[in-house]
Amino acid sequence: MKADLVYEGKAKKVYQAEGRPGELVLSYKNDATAFNGKKKESFEGKGELNNSISTLIFQKLHKSGIETHFIEKLNDTEQLVVQTEIIPLEVVVRNIASGSIAKRLGIEEKTIFEKPIIEFYYKDDALGDPLINDEHALYVTTITEAEISEVKQKALQINHQLLELFQSIGITLVDFKLEFGRKACGDIVLADEISPDTCRLWDRATGEKLDKDVFRQGNGDLIEVYNEILQRLEAKA
Amino acid sequence: MKADLVYEGKAKKVYQAEGRPGELVLSYKNDATAFNGKKKESFEGKGELNNSISTLIFQKLHKSGIETHFIEKLNDTEQLVVQTEIIPLEVVVRNIASGSIAKRLGIEEKTIFEKPIIEFYYKDDALGDPLINDEHALYVTTITEAEISEVKQKALQINHQLLELFQSIGITLVDFKLEFGRKACGDIVLADEISPDTCRLWDRATGEKLDKDVFRQGNGDLIEVYNEILQRLEAKA
Repeated sequence: MKADLVYEGKAKKVYQAEGRPGELVLSYKNDATAFNGKKKESFEGKGELNNSISTLIFQKLHKSGIETHFIEKLNDTEQLVVQTEIIPLEVVVRNIASGSIAKRLGIEEKTIFEKPIIEFYYKDDALGDPLINDEHALYVTTITEAEISEVKQKALQINHQLLELFQSIGITLVDFKLEFGRKACGDIVLADEISPDTCRLWDRATGEKLDKDVFRQGNGDLIEVYNEILQRLEAKA
Repeated sequence: MKADLVYEGKAKKVYQAEGRPGELVLSYKNDATAFNGKKKESFEGKGELNNSISTLIFQKLHKSGIETHFIEKLNDTEQLVVQTEIIPLEVVVRNIASGSIAKRLGIEEKTIFEKPIIEFYYKDDALGDPLINDEHALYVTTITEAEISEVKQKALQINHQLLELFQSIGITLVDFKLEFGRKACGDIVLADEISPDTCRLWDRATGEKLDKDVFRQGNGDLIEVYNEILQRLEAKA
């Protein structure tokens, strides 16, 4: 079903879908990277796990009326999506302080935010994906002021759905990263993936990290914890 | 006229005003610092120059109907101001890309912004005054959403006045930093200083830097260029 390679990212390859104009095939790789690509390793089975996890999550979002680029899972490592032009913003939603925000603001790790905090990072490897503000986003991307409000509102809706979903499987959703894409008609929809690569997920009972931090921090078995997330999501689905 | 020392910053000391409750004396020091205090030097006459320059600028803003903490110049190095609680935000207005924004966004130095860009930095030496977004500002300071809009609007008004003022004396206002303070009644007004310490000022004819960058970059005589700014402002006043 794949035609020309459109783009290769750190964790996925993107192809034109053969004979289906306006659609793309996302092919999940086994690579894990961290610290802006400085740490890199391959894990047999990771692509398959993230494809399955992201599929379940996007299906859940669809059921809640949230439009995304997702069409269907094609096979173990691939899914079909609507072609969009990715807006180069990493939209981060934070329910609990962890990682960069704790350092930036000088607050304790695990501080709970009464209201979730949304951040934009400029998706640019050469610049190290810097934090930017709304005015920078208006300057460096095609996004408009109205679309910034829309994206933030969608991010909060998605947060609401994901908090509920993960809570139901005994997991605290600490934070996560979203990407949005512009469709041919100009509308902006949720794109990319939602997986343990893009979320911080802590076991509610034990506090154990069930996400890419086990790779970043080198203190756990990535495949084991990603598989744990998939098992719990599948048991719920 | 000075009573107890309230606060000592890098470039000023702040005292209670003797017998004048609710008022403060700002005493300008000769110290110049850069790179979050890592570079430091003292320049005989700098305090006097900045006191005079900031006085002329705040008087100009008053004439334009912009409320500030400034009351009057007391002597060579001191001025009387309304006591406010400083909101720990450095509000930066940029008309032309220079310094950190060029690096952050990967854009050329001297790029002109069609619309000025406003940034907030969290005023915290230990954290290195990091860039933050509006949601961070709401979290780490007492500022409200309505006040963020108000502060941005005031910053743009001030920019408008300052662009005009500096243009009239042959200077390009590249960017500048403002601080705002909360009065006893709760209202927010412009506070701190506006001087070559807090602005990037380029000679329109020669491109010469007439601000603290000569100290940061070690390629000019700080007193000479600050004096040039004062002379031009006084000739205009």
